[in-house]
Amino acid sequence: MPASVLEIVRDELLDYQGSGMSIMEMSHRGKVFDAVYKESIDRLRKLASIPEKFDILYMTGGASTQFALIPLNFSGKGRTAGYVNTGTWSEKAVEQAKLQGVDVFMAASSQSEKHNHIPAVIEKKAGLDYLHITSNNTIYGTQYHTLPDPGDTKLVIDMSSDFLSRPIDWKHIGMAYAGTQKNAGPSGLTVVVIDREYYSREKSDTPTMFRYSTYGKNESMYNTPPTFQIYVFNLIMKWIESTGGLTGMDKVNQEKAKYIYDAIDASPNAYIGHSKKESRSLMNITFNLTDKSKEDEFQKGAQNLKLSGLKGHRSVGGFRASVYNAMPVEGCKILAQYMNEFGEAI
Amino acid sequence: MPASVLEIVRDELLDYQGSGMSIMEMSHRGKVFDAVYKESIDRLRKLASIPEKFDILYMTGGASTQFALIPLNFSGKGRTAGYVNTGTWSEKAVEQAKLQGVDVFMAASSQSEKHNHIPAVIEKKAGLDYLHITSNNTIYGTQYHTLPDPGDTKLVIDMSSDFLSRPIDWKHIGMAYAGTQKNAGPSGLTVVVIDREYYSREKSDTPTMFRYSTYGKNESMYNTPPTFQIYVFNLIMKWIESTGGLTGMDKVNQEKAKYIYDAIDASPNAYIGHSKKESRSLMNITFNLTDKSKEDEFQKGAQNLKLSGLKGHRSVGGFRASVYNAMPVEGCKILAQYMNEFGEAI
Repeated sequence: MPASVLEIVRDELLDYQGSGMSIMEMSHRGKVFDAVYKESIDRLRKLASIPEKFDILYMTGGASTQFALIPLNFSGKGRTAGYVNTGTWSEKAVEQAKLQGVDVFMAASSQSEKHNHIPAVIEKKAGLDYLHITSNNTIYGTQYHTLPDPGDTKLVIDMSSDFLSRPIDWKHIGMAYAGTQKNAGPSGLTVVVIDREYYSREKSDTPTMFRYSTYGKNESMYNTPPTFQIYVFNLIMKWIESTGGLTGMDKVNQEKAKYIYDAIDASPNAYIGHSKKESRSLMNITFNLTDKSKEDEFQKGAQNLKLSGLKGHRSVGGFRASVYNAMPVEGCKILAQYMNEFGEAI
Repeated sequence: MPASVLEIVRDELLDYQGSGMSIMEMSHRGKVFDAVYKESIDRLRKLASIPEKFDILYMTGGASTQFALIPLNFSGKGRTAGYVNTGTWSEKAVEQAKLQGVDVFMAASSQSEKHNHIPAVIEKKAGLDYLHITSNNTIYGTQYHTLPDPGDTKLVIDMSSDFLSRPIDWKHIGMAYAGTQKNAGPSGLTVVVIDREYYSREKSDTPTMFRYSTYGKNESMYNTPPTFQIYVFNLIMKWIESTGGLTGMDKVNQEKAKYIYDAIDASPNAYIGHSKKESRSLMNITFNLTDKSKEDEFQKGAQNLKLSGLKGHRSVGGFRASVYNAMPVEGCKILAQYMNEFGEAI
């Protein structure tokens, strides 16, 4: 998280803006929190240019809970929904749809090539309840750079790992959702942006808390929302505004990722990027060493420079640099320089 | 929340115990957070004397989500579960069971007397999947002082509004759950204590995130839990330990409530307590003025003493003093003194 945001949270922790109380202690139905809530909704709508037909919901349970709620509300037993498989998170989403008896239409998959790219072609099928995609794949380091055209249905997008990292084109979207813990705050808040038209698809016997309309019709306060997370999320969005909004954030993220990808490309004798160039993620940069026996040496050298968390996921192996919004440019430069030096020595 | 806890959160906000990072930024799979998680689980088990057969789960979505998950996992269409209706929250729980086609057996109800007491007698019925009760009723100001014997089934208890306010007798309990926002932290965390035997009742087509065993078998980390709330919850428990554990907390809560109930009883010409004496809640003290035309005057006088949030819920009217764990004794004394003076003048 940006240090400037953490400093505000610290400074206001015992006394939120002269109220004499911590934001954590305030009733979600009180005037003070209500103002925070409204400000955050207005800010997100403006920041991400969200059209009026969408509601913004504050939920909990993370993307994994959404994997179940989406088919529960918008598809169902014997109905057909489309999915694109670009890795572990997509697979988990598919699994939850199948568990509910949904007929899953696999519109595209990168599985046979170890998820090293985003499929360029999506098979169309008429009458899908929705087409689900994962906009960024944390494990494999791939990312959509243009959203696909879903044909006669709408996209439902898991944006958990690149939410608010770049502008969003809402044209083909029916719903987008994101746990906030990667780019937009602490864990414990799931932001859902949903076309209100979707509420009409809900079934009458779905439990109240499992329906999107329960949140939509009660300003996400049918019961107590995670108030502290909403407060921090609002501060994070303010910080993004101060860096030039989503266009500015995207520019910085492009710059950050370029340092590291350039280092990979500059030393082909040392590094193999996992993702094909056209699908490279700006959030998660995955690479292996050509000589795997040097992994420990590479890791130790990085740790000496206080570059931590570089170990790749076991599905890909090697290394992964996660350069979410709050990661400073300077950190990426240091890593790139280290990678260049390490690469030149090979 | 206790000021001493807020101060720790503030002081550690940018640098958790010398790690150089905020607890909010840490991976839930990292060593530092794992230690916080384990410490909090051990602390709760010891603090509330939770027998070994129970798992402690960290979930989200509040009690309202539990209202749906309980019948989904432990009962179902055409099966029978028991409920005691002691007010609005019980009714919401019943509603979610009925929505799923559960045959609800109403074992007792205080509805006909405006929920002014906890039913002394519970009708027994063989073969109930569970018997659901609400241990404290925030709106009506009533509370169980002894848990009822559920016969051949077990109790499932919503403890959201009196969790960790007093010792818990686990003898008849199958599961107890609580949103932490009243007595045990900020909103956004639901603590569930569940007999592991219950997992075997889950159905194979229930979505992964809706099953208790998913949390139980993954130390509540099948996906990212609300890490900040778990951290604060642990600090709140430390604070409760420092006041003498649940026995000490109960003693303080008894003392706090007594000041206010004594003030109600001392001026019967001025006040009518809503709850019958034997069912009085130590958390929420509800009363009306005998002369309702004096409500504004009472309210203004209280506000002059900085006693806020006293307006009763619309279902009961009048006034409600909520004296959760973190409310200092001094605040209760000030309210009681004000009530005595106001009462004597009538």
